[in-house]
Amino acid sequence: MTTTWVSGADEAGYGADNLPFGVFSPPGGAPRVGVRVGDYVLDLAEVLGGPEFSAGSLNPFMARGATAWHAARTKVAGMLAKEAGRPVAEPHLTPLSEVRLHAPFDVADYVDFYCSLDHASNVGRIFRPDEEPLKPNWRHLPVGYHGRAGTVVPSGTDIVRPAGQRKPPEASDPVFAPSVRLDIEAELGFVVGTSTSLGRTVPVEDFAEHVFGVVLVNDWSARDIQGWEYVPLGPFLGKSFATSVSPWVVPLEALSAARVAGPEQQPAPLPHLRRVADWGLDIAVEIQLNGEVLARPRYASMYWTPEQMLAHMTSNGASLRTGDLYASGTISGPLPDQRGSLLELTWGGAEPLTLADGSVRTFLEDGDTVSIAGSARGMGGGTISLGEVTGTVQPTRHPAP
Amino acid sequence: MTTTWVSGADEAGYGADNLPFGVFSPPGGAPRVGVRVGDYVLDLAEVLGGPEFSAGSLNPFMARGATAWHAARTKVAGMLAKEAGRPVAEPHLTPLSEVRLHAPFDVADYVDFYCSLDHASNVGRIFRPDEEPLKPNWRHLPVGYHGRAGTVVPSGTDIVRPAGQRKPPEASDPVFAPSVRLDIEAELGFVVGTSTSLGRTVPVEDFAEHVFGVVLVNDWSARDIQGWEYVPLGPFLGKSFATSVSPWVVPLEALSAARVAGPEQQPAPLPHLRRVADWGLDIAVEIQLNGEVLARPRYASMYWTPEQMLAHMTSNGASLRTGDLYASGTISGPLPDQRGSLLELTWGGAEPLTLADGSVRTFLEDGDTVSIAGSARGMGGGTISLGEVTGTVQPTRHPAP
Repeated sequence: MTTTWVSGADEAGYGADNLPFGVFSPPGGAPRVGVRVGDYVLDLAEVLGGPEFSAGSLNPFMARGATAWHAARTKVAGMLAKEAGRPVAEPHLTPLSEVRLHAPFDVADYVDFYCSLDHASNVGRIFRPDEEPLKPNWRHLPVGYHGRAGTVVPSGTDIVRPAGQRKPPEASDPVFAPSVRLDIEAELGFVVGTSTSLGRTVPVEDFAEHVFGVVLVNDWSARDIQGWEYVPLGPFLGKSFATSVSPWVVPLEALSAARVAGPEQQPAPLPHLRRVADWGLDIAVEIQLNGEVLARPRYASMYWTPEQMLAHMTSNGASLRTGDLYASGTISGPLPDQRGSLLELTWGGAEPLTLADGSVRTFLEDGDTVSIAGSARGMGGGTISLGEVTGTVQPTRHPAP
Repeated sequence: MTTTWVSGADEAGYGADNLPFGVFSPPGGAPRVGVRVGDYVLDLAEVLGGPEFSAGSLNPFMARGATAWHAARTKVAGMLAKEAGRPVAEPHLTPLSEVRLHAPFDVADYVDFYCSLDHASNVGRIFRPDEEPLKPNWRHLPVGYHGRAGTVVPSGTDIVRPAGQRKPPEASDPVFAPSVRLDIEAELGFVVGTSTSLGRTVPVEDFAEHVFGVVLVNDWSARDIQGWEYVPLGPFLGKSFATSVSPWVVPLEALSAARVAGPEQQPAPLPHLRRVADWGLDIAVEIQLNGEVLARPRYASMYWTPEQMLAHMTSNGASLRTGDLYASGTISGPLPDQRGSLLELTWGGAEPLTLADGSVRTFLEDGDTVSIAGSARGMGGGTISLGEVTGTVQPTRHPAP
């Protein structure tokens, strides 16, 4: 394990093996790129220089490509792991408590997949109990759709309960009212650094040339709005009100020791989707509601792996842009306490949860705070943290005019 | 009718009543904002000044809001309609044939609706012959979904035939191969100028405060890819390879004389979607394949009107950004020659079209050029042109790796 001289950093999961990138403002300063180490932020504009680090988003740096990502990470690791780097780096560490964190990158397009076999099966059973839970295409391709890039918000942003049109099963007509089935989806997001031109595909082999790193994602979902609107063109307003992402982008390189083979795929995917390397990721995810753990899914159980998602997404020649974000879909495992949404944890609301304070939940109440945290094995054998994505539900501000 | 001193401009539909905005490079110059008049472009960076006109996209100008849009349009109209303006404007007119046109705006989010009753009914009958053609939600809300903003391309961009996964009905397994059902969708697109903050809704009354103008859209569609992938999360790769837009954004103000009441809606929409002004638009659309007219739908027949789409899209508090583009969905009317897609014109491929050269089409062949043109009544009683959006199909460049 590579240790750092920054006090407490290794133990906290933010040592020299992690080094996630984000955007922060120091007291009185403009937004710039930094790396988190322990409870500090290292100012890359100061220690590395270059216009890409003085920017208010990671996009210019991410656009530079995998060689530049590796070089920057190596330099920063050197400064933080060796005593000799201390005089260079230490003057440019600011305590996290004194900085303001920003959205780490400008989202170009946002795509959401549906890669968990357990999640897709659970949702199928809940919504369509009389049918096969999986649709015929599910095992042949990673099903996905585009979400709203403009409402991807940084962790900590309040989530206003959306109003929308929904039709209760017993009603003859829809109503417009605040959602009563506001849910979470715990997901992992992949952030594209290197763009492609229109008409080019990205084979599974090239995944790490294009994807810079990962964030935790909470894909807030209004199940009642979604259920009424989604046929035949998919989710729209049930999802587009907000999607939260964690503030620190963990580079793929930091996840080397977390790579595992994905689950066996039956039937074998078509050639362009076949895996050639292990890009399953053994990331432990923890979902808390008001500080109480609701579920602990593991990312390693995801049926479709991220290089397969990228190959699929570009297989029609669709181009990539720096800042494209694609998320895995809800991370659910086979066990009841590995379910990544309240829809599954309460089985469509039929099995309410009783919380430690005695209160009962089917879906989220105003004032509820949800946090999704992640961690994985680091390159030196310790644990690295993916941080957390959090948000608190606020009452609807916009009843029907 | 307000006439202009620019020769031939009024007759061509690009007179002082139209004045669409776009982005062009003059010979040897950088991209900037211009207004089309006749076969010329007026350089706004020169005649109006201001950094928003020296930009390479309309976004900075559009972000300034409706008062600024009106002021700029009024000044330009004055220069072009009055002989007194001639000495100011004439030195800054460049023939269209000498300029390079660019994408007129940077697309933030792209949403595609499904607002034609005839189109939705036709598609339902073709794809689901044993069911009610319209889904239960269709008459209660404008159904829509997010598309890929990064692959919205300017008119004239070649369209590479996408490859993708599809399952022929008779096959037991899907194949990955070039699409054999490549189609068009003739649509009208609405370009958002003024942004909103998260949690705010845009009531139907505020439509013209937020939407700057319209473009013609060809939402290229691979029906075989779409048909296999779209359950349950909607269209993805069947659409995301390319969406073409016309180069000139016609301001809403230029369409004042084209405003008509939308079709009667039964049942009446919920209060937040109820119309309070006439925002139906009587735009004549013409679809040509290799120069031959295939169809002439009229936009006035669209069931859901654009202020309803905007109110719906923001009814959950989703924010708007400058450059958001939302398209109407395929414009189809009740008559066979008013159908805006080959899917409908050939009834799912069952009724091939015979072209003037004797060749037969169900869907598009490599080398086919599609142009969609539009025109409407101008404020002075003449006709204004919406220009055209065009593209030529190129063979797949990326067979299965």
